[in-house]
Amino acid sequence: MSGAVRQCFVTLVRLGAMKYARLTVHVKKHSLSIKLLSVGTLSSFTAFSYGSSSPDVESASTWMSAPITDLKHLQENTGDMRCKMESLIMRIQADVCHALEKEELEEGGKKFQVDRWLREQGGGGVTCVLQDGTVFEKAGVNVSVVTGLLPPDAAIQMRARGKKMQGEKLKFFAAGVSSVIHPRNPHVPTVHFNYRYFEVEDENGEKQWWFGGGTDLTPYYLDESDAVSFHKALKKACDPHGKHLYPKYKKWCDDYFNITHRGERRGVGGIFFDDVDEPTPEKCFEFVKSCGDSVVPSYVPIVQKNKKKSYTYDERQWQLLRRGRYVEFNLIYDRGTKFGLYTPGARYESILMSLPLTAKWEYMHSPEPGSREAKLVEVLKHPKDWI
Amino acid sequence: MSGAVRQCFVTLVRLGAMKYARLTVHVKKHSLSIKLLSVGTLSSFTAFSYGSSSPDVESASTWMSAPITDLKHLQENTGDMRCKMESLIMRIQADVCHALEKEELEEGGKKFQVDRWLREQGGGGVTCVLQDGTVFEKAGVNVSVVTGLLPPDAAIQMRARGKKMQGEKLKFFAAGVSSVIHPRNPHVPTVHFNYRYFEVEDENGEKQWWFGGGTDLTPYYLDESDAVSFHKALKKACDPHGKHLYPKYKKWCDDYFNITHRGERRGVGGIFFDDVDEPTPEKCFEFVKSCGDSVVPSYVPIVQKNKKKSYTYDERQWQLLRRGRYVEFNLIYDRGTKFGLYTPGARYESILMSLPLTAKWEYMHSPEPGSREAKLVEVLKHPKDWI
Repeated sequence: MSGAVRQCFVTLVRLGAMKYARLTVHVKKHSLSIKLLSVGTLSSFTAFSYGSSSPDVESASTWMSAPITDLKHLQENTGDMRCKMESLIMRIQADVCHALEKEELEEGGKKFQVDRWLREQGGGGVTCVLQDGTVFEKAGVNVSVVTGLLPPDAAIQMRARGKKMQGEKLKFFAAGVSSVIHPRNPHVPTVHFNYRYFEVEDENGEKQWWFGGGTDLTPYYLDESDAVSFHKALKKACDPHGKHLYPKYKKWCDDYFNITHRGERRGVGGIFFDDVDEPTPEKCFEFVKSCGDSVVPSYVPIVQKNKKKSYTYDERQWQLLRRGRYVEFNLIYDRGTKFGLYTPGARYESILMSLPLTAKWEYMHSPEPGSREAKLVEVLKHPKDWI
Repeated sequence: MSGAVRQCFVTLVRLGAMKYARLTVHVKKHSLSIKLLSVGTLSSFTAFSYGSSSPDVESASTWMSAPITDLKHLQENTGDMRCKMESLIMRIQADVCHALEKEELEEGGKKFQVDRWLREQGGGGVTCVLQDGTVFEKAGVNVSVVTGLLPPDAAIQMRARGKKMQGEKLKFFAAGVSSVIHPRNPHVPTVHFNYRYFEVEDENGEKQWWFGGGTDLTPYYLDESDAVSFHKALKKACDPHGKHLYPKYKKWCDDYFNITHRGERRGVGGIFFDDVDEPTPEKCFEFVKSCGDSVVPSYVPIVQKNKKKSYTYDERQWQLLRRGRYVEFNLIYDRGTKFGLYTPGARYESILMSLPLTAKWEYMHSPEPGSREAKLVEVLKHPKDWI
């Protein structure tokens, strides 16, 4: 293997005015294969195959773009939590995007647009969006790795949650993957997930760290067996890390995704947690990894089962109304959206990719009593245990 | 005129399962005429013609429903600011609704649905919504007259604006009319207006009062002559009350309707003011009345001029994207929406009637340089003086 190939390998092929084809290079045992992964508006991509003991960083050739931190640094620091987390979220992003593209491919073949962006104040991200596909109306999977000073509103929120942090100048590091997938067919639910690692250092040099995250499902029509299989997959991801985790985080999810002014949950829930910092960073990381790895097996079978079902104009209109509720939750209540929009230099396109392609608001819409629409609302008003 | 006719006259005629025809009774000089005003889901309506010196309360027979306060009380207390304001906003609501129905009528005849509602904690409102019309996709005109204890978040906001209020238990009275009118045709701008009167009494019994309000225009395509005529009408309403008012409130409007994360104003502005309490309650009221009366002459000619213009699919899509921005402003930044949703017992359907029937969010949408869409965005990024 030549030194030149070992070096950062960036290949961009211009295809027309704004399009680039991304080439990744797999260098394994002295054989070189070049594979066209996707077409997007990528500005650069670097792939190495380097000696490493971490399975996440070893998957770098499949990632949607170069990571934010130099890949070599990630490969050489597989014991460092910041590096481990960045490699994990890059790998989860890639796994989810490839799984969704596969579902789309069978139907006509839309691909994710990949935007790697850097933030003036420190860090950056990789935003992947597949828009106006056959199966997915809008699917966004975003990685961000950000450093800087904590916005004052975020510090207030964290202190209200019990964090002790001295002084005003609070340095932070945040690495997370977040995603919202809005399918076109009203019989396929929307899914959201977000897994993140946070570090804050206060003016006295005291450091704190924690993990947060969750996955939750928002159906437009209630298929109980889908809700059950989804929750079972999440429970399976949680159980090896403590039998108490799934019930605790399931309830937290119902409490968090609450559209307070309507007295309705956003969907049929899932899991949600924050401030997880016990027993050790390593064990917390393994738990979050297990949750992140459950996204594809919990959700994709539901897509496969329902994506070819026929639907009516009225069913589509109901879906659009429910998407209006989704927008209400995200813009009025969601902590992540607020944190994002209030962070100086935030990339609002990445934060707001969670919004659906289309949403509706009808004044005083109320589903017919006894209808399938009313049955969904009943479950949203009174969350239930699915397993 | 018989005593019976002088009494509260409520007539409801059931038309099918959920529909009611509202009958108003005009009693003038011993002649009695009954006129079918509109069909809606009204629960009650009372109209009097009583001796009164206030032109607003004298128009009660044209109002969209009974006021929140007993009409007799309004008629007998025309010197009381709470009563004056309630009569004014009921009259402005009726004037706007009738003017819009007239535009709609020529095109096919959708009418406002009228909902009079009462709030457990005190007061209530009248919400009028015309949805899915030919000219107006969604038009809402809402009156609310509310009393109670100030929500803590609202008290924080008011103190931040300089209000001195002692104690935690702050009694308030608020009466206002607010409206958002979303036309179907992308060549007709959206308009918003809101005029309100506020009283707060703190724990020491200290009372404060002030007026607030504004009218602003959100075009989808920029017609400079429409922006100019709109601003001229607002200036004409302001000038008799002080030549300094229009420039001051025009700037305030540009500053307030700012979608901070995008660095874009919501539209081409208008006027916006708050905490107006000088020189006298009477003079402030006359100013607000003059502004409220300028809504129809500033906006309806623009509707008439543009409502029959043809438009393309792409123009409609652009309108829907801009409506997404409108939703972002209203749910993330608008003080009125937040105050409403955080007020216990608030009627969220009335607060959220401001949201468009349909909105879109496309990831990374950017208008072609030099296009009419780009020209609009240019003005939203750099507000200009129209007169």
